[in-house]
Amino acid sequence: MKTVIIGGVAGGLSAASQIKRADRDAEVIVLEKSGDPSYAACGMPYNLFFKDTPVEALYALSLDTIRNGRGIDYRLRHEAVAIDPRRQEVTVVDHEQNREYRERYDFLVYATGNRPAPLPLPGFDDPAVCYFKTLDDTRRVKRLIHDQAPACAILVGAGYTNLEVADVLYNMKIRPVIVEKAPAILPAFAAEIRDKVMEKIAEKGIEFHAGVDVQGKEGATVRTTAGDFDAGLVVVAIGVKPNTGLFAAAGGELGAAGAVKVDQFLQTNLPGVFAAGDCAEHYVRQLGRNSYMPLGPVANKQGRLAGNNIAHRDAMTMFHGIDQTAAFKFFDLTIATTGLNERQLREMGTDFGKIHVDTPTRGSFPGGGTMRTVLLFEKGTGLLLGGQMVGQDVVAKRLDVLAVAVYKQMTVFELAELDLSYAPPYAPVWDPLLIAANQAVKAV
Amino acid sequence: MKTVIIGGVAGGLSAASQIKRADRDAEVIVLEKSGDPSYAACGMPYNLFFKDTPVEALYALSLDTIRNGRGIDYRLRHEAVAIDPRRQEVTVVDHEQNREYRERYDFLVYATGNRPAPLPLPGFDDPAVCYFKTLDDTRRVKRLIHDQAPACAILVGAGYTNLEVADVLYNMKIRPVIVEKAPAILPAFAAEIRDKVMEKIAEKGIEFHAGVDVQGKEGATVRTTAGDFDAGLVVVAIGVKPNTGLFAAAGGELGAAGAVKVDQFLQTNLPGVFAAGDCAEHYVRQLGRNSYMPLGPVANKQGRLAGNNIAHRDAMTMFHGIDQTAAFKFFDLTIATTGLNERQLREMGTDFGKIHVDTPTRGSFPGGGTMRTVLLFEKGTGLLLGGQMVGQDVVAKRLDVLAVAVYKQMTVFELAELDLSYAPPYAPVWDPLLIAANQAVKAV
Repeated sequence: MKTVIIGGVAGGLSAASQIKRADRDAEVIVLEKSGDPSYAACGMPYNLFFKDTPVEALYALSLDTIRNGRGIDYRLRHEAVAIDPRRQEVTVVDHEQNREYRERYDFLVYATGNRPAPLPLPGFDDPAVCYFKTLDDTRRVKRLIHDQAPACAILVGAGYTNLEVADVLYNMKIRPVIVEKAPAILPAFAAEIRDKVMEKIAEKGIEFHAGVDVQGKEGATVRTTAGDFDAGLVVVAIGVKPNTGLFAAAGGELGAAGAVKVDQFLQTNLPGVFAAGDCAEHYVRQLGRNSYMPLGPVANKQGRLAGNNIAHRDAMTMFHGIDQTAAFKFFDLTIATTGLNERQLREMGTDFGKIHVDTPTRGSFPGGGTMRTVLLFEKGTGLLLGGQMVGQDVVAKRLDVLAVAVYKQMTVFELAELDLSYAPPYAPVWDPLLIAANQAVKAV
Repeated sequence: MKTVIIGGVAGGLSAASQIKRADRDAEVIVLEKSGDPSYAACGMPYNLFFKDTPVEALYALSLDTIRNGRGIDYRLRHEAVAIDPRRQEVTVVDHEQNREYRERYDFLVYATGNRPAPLPLPGFDDPAVCYFKTLDDTRRVKRLIHDQAPACAILVGAGYTNLEVADVLYNMKIRPVIVEKAPAILPAFAAEIRDKVMEKIAEKGIEFHAGVDVQGKEGATVRTTAGDFDAGLVVVAIGVKPNTGLFAAAGGELGAAGAVKVDQFLQTNLPGVFAAGDCAEHYVRQLGRNSYMPLGPVANKQGRLAGNNIAHRDAMTMFHGIDQTAAFKFFDLTIATTGLNERQLREMGTDFGKIHVDTPTRGSFPGGGTMRTVLLFEKGTGLLLGGQMVGQDVVAKRLDVLAVAVYKQMTVFELAELDLSYAPPYAPVWDPLLIAANQAVKAV
C-alpha cells in the first residue's frame, strides 16, 4: 500500500505518522513544497521576539525523527503540480534537483494548508510588506525587525494574528498601529469581551483605527482613509484562503468557504483521496454541518484520522467535529471562545440568553488577576450554547471546561453542579465558572 | 420565619446569605463561637509567609457587609451549647457578655465545621505544638515563626495541609522535617503521582520519614521511632473530625465517618434542622452514597443549598453531590485529583485500566513546564472513572476538564474528541488531556 501526501505540516505529517504507526511497512511519501519540515505555525509571532532562537526551533520534529524514527519518505522542496485521479498519479517538481516526475498512489492525502488573503494594493509589492503564514515569512519579518529596527509597524487587519503580533512588537519597542476594515474587532466575540480588548489597546496606548480602507503604499508611507502612516514594516493579516487549486483542477469538489469538501471519514469526491487540515472543511458539531475554521488542533486531528482511515479502511472512524474552540494571548489577557457565538445564534434564530460575570482568578494567594466570563444559553431549557472568556492569569484552560460542556450538550443547571478544583493559588472558593453558571440559572 | 445557624464560616454564612437573598425580611441569626467572621481557611498556610498581611485579610466578608449589607444577625463569640429539638430552641453562651440565653428557631442550620484530630502525647501540650485549623491557630503559628524564628519545624502528618505548610516554611528558611505514620504519602493518589511529589521532596532536600510513630516531646526534642528531632515548631495535621457533639447530644443521627447524617435536601433526622459543610456528610455521585470529604467548595455549596431549601421549602432542590475533586500546591508542583481513586476502585472490585503520560504544558512559548496525567477507566467500556495530575504551570484548571468528564460519565473515546483551547502560551497543539485520552483509548 502506497500513500502520497501533499503537504507536510500539521495535517500531512499527522496522517503520515498515523499510517506508519498502524503499518510500519506501508509506503508513505510526503511532498513538502517548502524547505522546512512540519512546524508549529502558531508559535511564529513569539519567535520574533527572541533574536537568538532560530526559526527552526519551531520545527515539530527533526527531519531525522521523521525519516528514520517514523520511517516516512519526507521530501522537502518537492511540489505537487498536478493530480491525475484516474491513473492515481501525482506530478511532482523536485526543486532541489530541478526535475519533474510522477508518483503513483493507492491513497492520497491532500493537506496543502491555506494562504493569507492577499492585499494587492499599489506599492504593496514592497519588501517591507509582509504576510505571516510560513517560516519563510517569519524569517523575513524577523530579519527586517532585527536588521532595520523599524520604529513603527502598520498592522493591517485586527484578527488573532495581528493582535498577537502587536503584543510582540510592542514588547520589542516597535510601535504597532492597527488598521481594520470592519467597524469593530473580533466579530465572533461578545461586546463584553471585545470591550476588554479595546481597554487593553487603550491602556497600552496602541493606535487603533477601525472602519478603515488601506489605499496603498508610497515609499515608507501607507495611505489609508484614516490618514497616512509612516512605517518600516507592514504586516497584512486579513484572513486566509484554503489552498485548493491543484485539487479543484483534478475535478475535486469544494465545499464550505471554498475548502476541500470532505465526508465524515475525510474522504473527498476523488477516489482514494482524503483531505485534512487548513485546506479542508471542518465539521462543527453544533451546526451539524461542515464549516471552515482552520486551526492547529483540528489539522492534527484530521490528519491523524485520515491516516487512520487509510490504514484501517475496513473499519474507518468518523471525524466527530469541532466546537469552534479558540484562544489567543494579547498582553496579559487571554481571550478564548467555544461553541456558537451570538452572530451564529442570531442567524439560526435561536432564542438565547447571555450573562457575564467579573471575578478574581485566585483565592488568598498572590499573583492572580481578574477575568470576565460570558455564557450563552438557550432560553427555557438552559442548554449551554457557547462561552467566552477574557482575563489575566489562567483563562484558556478554564475555557476548556465550557468546551466539554458544549461537547456534552450540558445545561447551565448542570454547569452549576460541577465539582471544580479549588485551592487559593488556583481559584476562589466559588470558581468563576460556577459563579457564571449560578447567574445563568437565574436568567434561563 | 426565623433561622438560627450554628457556625458562621463557609457553610453557615452561605446558608445565611442565601436565606436573606430569597427573603430580605427573614430573621437569620448566626452564632459564631470564635471572634472571627467567615474566613478563607485554605489561605491560612500562605498567610504565614507575609508578616505584614494581617490574618484578618483572610476574612471572606467584613462584619459590616455581613450585618448591614446582607442583613444577617451575625453574633461573634456566641457559642451554642445545647439544642432542644422538641422546643426548637438553642441554648447560647455569649462569651462577650458572659451570659447564657435561649434562642427559638423555626429552622436550624448546623454548620459547626470540623476540628483537627488530636495527638495527645506526652509533652504535646507544649506551646510550640500547633494545629492549623482556625485563624487563632494561624495567629499562634505566625507569631511563633516571626518572633522566635525557629530553624526547624517538625510536621506530623504528610497530608495536603502539611505539604502546603512545608512549602511555605521552606520558603521562609525554616527547615521542615515531615514525619508520617503511614508507609507512604497521599494514599488517594496513584504511585505515578506520588513519585513526582517524592522527587520534589528529595530535590528540595526536605527530610521525610514514613512509617514513623511520634512518641512525645521533651523540651525542644520530639521523640519518634525514626529518632529524635529538635524543633522550635511542631505542626500536627493528621486528619480532621467533624464537630457533631452538640447535634448528637440532641438525638441527631450520625452517618459516614461520624459526620452529621443528611438526606439529599441536607435535612437531618431532627425536625427543621439542616446541616452543611465540614460537619456533615457529602454525597459522592460516583459512589451513589454519602461519604466525608470536607473541602471549601462543598461547604459553600451545601450552605447555599440548605439556605435555599429553608427559603423555598415547598420547592426544595437536591444536593447533587461531589466528584471528589481536590488540588493543592507543593512548591512548583500542583497535585490534583477527581473521581474515584485506585483504592476505591479495588474496594469496589471494578475492572479498571490505568495509563499515564508525561507532556509539556505549553507550545513554543517560554515559561511552561512538564506535567503528568493519570487516567483511570473501566476496562471494556472506556468509562472514565477518575483522573489525577501533577506538574508545573497550569494543572488544577486542566484537571477540571476531567472533573466535568467524570460528572457527565464520559468515556475516554469521548475525551479524545474534545475540542480544547490551543495557542502556544497555553498548550501544545495536542493538549496533554488529548494525548492521555489517545493512550487510554488503546488500553480499553
